[in-house]
Amino acid sequence: MIEDLGAPRAVVLLSGGLDSATALAIARAQGFEVHALSFRYGQRHAGEVEAARRVARAQGVAYHRIMSLGLDQVGGSALTADVPVPKGRSEKEIGRGIPVTYVPARNTIFLSFALAWCEVLGARDAFIGVNALDYSGYPDCRPEFIQAFERVAQLATRAAVEEPEPPFRIHAPLIRLTKAEIIRRGAALGVDYALTRSCYDPAPGDEACGLCDACQLRLKGFREAGLPDPVPYRSVPTGA
Amino acid sequence: MIEDLGAPRAVVLLSGGLDSATALAIARAQGFEVHALSFRYGQRHAGEVEAARRVARAQGVAYHRIMSLGLDQVGGSALTADVPVPKGRSEKEIGRGIPVTYVPARNTIFLSFALAWCEVLGARDAFIGVNALDYSGYPDCRPEFIQAFERVAQLATRAAVEEPEPPFRIHAPLIRLTKAEIIRRGAALGVDYALTRSCYDPAPGDEACGLCDACQLRLKGFREAGLPDPVPYRSVPTGA
Repeated sequence: MIEDLGAPRAVVLLSGGLDSATALAIARAQGFEVHALSFRYGQRHAGEVEAARRVARAQGVAYHRIMSLGLDQVGGSALTADVPVPKGRSEKEIGRGIPVTYVPARNTIFLSFALAWCEVLGARDAFIGVNALDYSGYPDCRPEFIQAFERVAQLATRAAVEEPEPPFRIHAPLIRLTKAEIIRRGAALGVDYALTRSCYDPAPGDEACGLCDACQLRLKGFREAGLPDPVPYRSVPTGA
Repeated sequence: MIEDLGAPRAVVLLSGGLDSATALAIARAQGFEVHALSFRYGQRHAGEVEAARRVARAQGVAYHRIMSLGLDQVGGSALTADVPVPKGRSEKEIGRGIPVTYVPARNTIFLSFALAWCEVLGARDAFIGVNALDYSGYPDCRPEFIQAFERVAQLATRAAVEEPEPPFRIHAPLIRLTKAEIIRRGAALGVDYALTRSCYDPAPGDEACGLCDACQLRLKGFREAGLPDPVPYRSVPTGA
């Protein structure tokens, strides 16, 4: 049983990275009772689930659900299959095309589960920390994708049939922010980024590699925000 | 490794019921190399996965993937939680409102996985046996839902970004057919309906209850098609 605290409920997709930790803080700042949803989906960087747990605890969510999904059964990505994670790519390379770390239909799948859980909770709001500026070119991080999924959500549920105006909303509060803006926003809301993890290929001691796209985008974001990145790195590229 | 047989590939969602068995036959008749996708999602009528296996084998698919999903972790349905399945409802009652057997966001979730697998296979076509005529009023069986999801599919994938015209299609070939029309269509294509299972609450010996909405819609369909239903029933309501 989930206690009814009176505030409207929202499901927040929480990966354990800095974006979703910030999206969670924004949902709370907007007055939602937050139900965080994370996935073990066969990702090689499974430490991110531990990071999600730390973030959920630190920010005080109503409930944190961790679902297991066998996306590795589907394959097709360096994050879930035996394909090397690219390292040391330049900023230009990161901005061009879709890298092998793309997981087929991942955000569609995650949002579908968020939708299911919203329905069970009677929630009409789901948050996802996607970002279409300092990102890896994933198709399912773009505003048009989020809009299209919101339309699905408005048609797919019991409320869509039983209630005249289903105001189901998919919130993507970071979608047009730079990584530096996201970090500044989160810092202002008290997000403890030491708890988050972004690296696609961390070392056994939980050190970030410093070289994968996710590390590089994160390091650049902290640099531009003028703040130190509190997580440990194994190596940081020259100039970072 | 999946052998390339030259025909275009399609992913077909296969529940083991009569609708999806017919959708599969239609996909094959349209010349697709069929990759069937079924789910163990915590449904109480898990025998339908066995039915799916029989149907896939009988119709000769290229590959049959059975994924496990913990939808029972989400709850909210008589099919996955400890809520009784309604029995003996009249036709009028079945046509009115959304019953407790509705599984929150189920088709959205299933289509998301179909999309992921299509991407991995290089397929641009997914089939789902939804039907908006003789059905249980589920919101995610309606044409507008299918169209909205097709739009998501056209935006969500690598092909959406890397190729100029992504003709991703969600096929719902049964959506405007009556149950009787579906059965006649499948019979003409050689579907062996003895292999399928539709009951939401089968008896231990795999007998259909004859009284749940799914049994009633199925029995009515065979009656109207003028064909015998080859599956065993524990009880059949008067007049059937």
